[in-house]
Amino acid sequence: SVLRRFKPLLDRVLVERFAPEVKTKGGIMLPEKSVGKVLDAKVVAIGPGAKNLEGKVVPMSVNVGDRVLLPEYGGTKITLDEKDYHLFRDGDILAKYEAES
Amino acid sequence: SVLRRFKPLLDRVLVERFAPEVKTKGGIMLPEKSVGKVLDAKVVAIGPGAKNLEGKVVPMSVNVGDRVLLPEYGGTKITLDEKDYHLFRDGDILAKYEAES
Amino acid sequence: SVLRRFKPLLDRVLVERFAPEVKTKGGIMLPEKSVGKVLDAKVVAIGPGAKNLEGKVVPMSVNVGDRVLLPEYGGTKITLDEKDYHLFRDGDILAKYEAES
Amino acid sequence: SVLRRFKPLLDRVLVERFAPEVKTKGGIMLPEKSVGKVLDAKVVAIGPGAKNLEGKVVPMSVNVGDRVLLPEYGGTKITLDEKDYHLFRDGDILAKYEAES
Amino acid sequence: SVLRRFKPLLDRVLVERFAPEVKTKGGIMLPEKSVGKVLDAKVVAIGPGAKNLEGKVVPMSVNVGDRVLLPEYGGTKITLDEKDYHLFRDGDILAKYEAES
Amino acid sequence: SVLRRFKPLLDRVLVERFAPEVKTKGGIMLPEKSVGKVLDAKVVAIGPGAKNLEGKVVPMSVNVGDRVLLPEYGGTKITLDEKDYHLFRDGDILAKYEAES
Amino acid sequence: SVLRRFKPLLDRVLVERFAPEVKTKGGIMLPEKSVGKVLDAKVVAIGPGAKNLEGKVVPMSVNVGDRVLLPEYGGTKITLDEKDYHLFRDGDILAKYEAES
Repeated sequence: SVLRRFKPLLDRVLVERFAPEVKTKGGIMLPEKSVGKVLDAKVVAIGPGAKNLEGKVVPMSVNVGDRVLLPEYGGTKITLDEKDYHLFRDGDILAKYEAES
Repeated sequence: SVLRRFKPLLDRVLVERFAPEVKTKGGIMLPEKSVGKVLDAKVVAIGPGAKNLEGKVVPMSVNVGDRVLLPEYGGTKITLDEKDYHLFRDGDILAKYEAES
Repeated sequence: SVLRRFKPLLDRVLVERFAPEVKTKGGIMLPEKSVGKVLDAKVVAIGPGAKNLEGKVVPMSVNVGDRVLLPEYGGTKITLDEKDYHLFRDGDILAKYEAES
Repeated sequence: SVLRRFKPLLDRVLVERFAPEVKTKGGIMLPEKSVGKVLDAKVVAIGPGAKNLEGKVVPMSVNVGDRVLLPEYGGTKITLDEKDYHLFRDGDILAKYEAES
Repeated sequence: SVLRRFKPLLDRVLVERFAPEVKTKGGIMLPEKSVGKVLDAKVVAIGPGAKNLEGKVVPMSVNVGDRVLLPEYGGTKITLDEKDYHLFRDGDILAKYEAES
Repeated sequence: SVLRRFKPLLDRVLVERFAPEVKTKGGIMLPEKSVGKVLDAKVVAIGPGAKNLEGKVVPMSVNVGDRVLLPEYGGTKITLDEKDYHLFRDGDILAKYEAES
Repeated sequence: SVLRRFKPLLDRVLVERFAPEVKTKGGIMLPEKSVGKVLDAKVVAIGPGAKNLEGKVVPMSVNVGDRVLLPEYGGTKITLDEKDYHLFRDGDILAKYEAES
């Protein structure tokens, strides 16, 4: 698969957005228009990190498998194996959801 | 709860604005329009801090539980467990109110 | 009082503008319009100082009680205990008046 | 050949875009207009790397022979031996595809 | 006097512009309009100097009593004891005239 | 000659563009309009190099006699001994052609 | 003379433009309009040099008496002893002409 060989460079992060909720909690279909952009996503690949002014690598704040909250804007759409992914900079990702302990 | 697992990244701070005063001191209901944006809020989650040019983490100036004064503009609205919160950068928060000693 | 518990963050300074002179030296009332913005003020609270690129705190150049000259523009209006104050960055304050030695 | 003697300077990377897919998987010719810009390319020459503020060379993140993903915009078209190539900055290349292990 | 107690902050310099020449060398009055802004001035007070990125104070290049050449634009007008002065940044002052040795 | 005494300052490079090809390979004269700006040039003089933030000289990436590829835009036209040359910054030169080994 | 006492500050350089050639080599007067701005000039005074981020003085690249090539734009006109001079930043001067060895 292309995805397995895909290595983001510097501080870039490849994420896959979760499928949008198309039904209300009660099970009623949501009108197409109202389904906003999904801001929750899973990290599928991360770069090695960028270097700061002194040449030291700045460690990434997210890892493969993390569930994260994306900003509303920005990101670059990438299609691999006919599936849509998005590339964000590590510093632009707003937050991560810790796993259920 | 999602809130408990929500970890802001870098120097971001998650705050919950206080409910607006809807009555004057004398108890008379304030007209809807006049109720401005509430700038006082409580810190509910903070990130680990951002790194400066030398890779050292810049300690955060606020902590969970602090009562803070928000700037009028900026911030990103986040909805968790159907409640509204806002994400600010640590450096954009104007001041904090020390607890009643 | 809220003022006592109000702690500006980083390099912010809380000042209280002096009351405008409403009378000429001769005691004649000045027309309302001609009373410009008062640029002299007293420092009522200061933050701990901001950090420079190397993480060292940059000491503040003003202190509580100092009489200072404010720039014409900038500053954020803050109301505490129904009194108006203004928040400025330490670096934006133009000068201070040393006490009568 | 000119290409062999062509040495990009600083952190520049010379790439050759792959030929666009002109047929669908089923073998049907794609209409000319729908063939978008090809974002996959091969690295044919790299510069020595740029220097950071402290004069240390920042190592390049791609190498000759790597298969990379280009950003949609940017890059400078260069014609050598009547073939088209493009010059990108190392930091603008989005990702690389690791070889089939 | 207020002037004596006036301490510019950081790298600011308080100057007093020289009176404009209103007569030609021959003693003929110059028309009001032609008397341009006077760019020569005397330094009456200086700040302690600003700090560079490493927290070291950058020494001032002018001193109290120096005769200096001001840039045509910039500067902030300040009125002390009903006399006009101007505040400039040390780095914006173009040159100084050494005393008649 | 003026050229011999001409010393570019800091990281500037003086180049002489090659004469444009006015004939096709087959020897047919090219129409005037179609002869684009020549981007290949020879380095005739280089500055000592600029200093980075720490005061260390950043060595130049090109040398007198090198054949280089110029960017399409930028550069300053200089006329010496009635011949046209151009001044570029070292960092703006795209690539150099190594001599036929 | 005022010129002798005129000391540019930081990295400023005071230059005097050469008189424009008003005759062609053959001795024919050039039409007024065609006499462009003279870009060759002599250095008459230099500042001590500016400081870099670490507080070290960046040595000047030109000296009093040097013949230099000015950029087409920029510079500040200064009149001393009724003669016109111009102030440039050291880093904006394009090149210098070494003396006839």
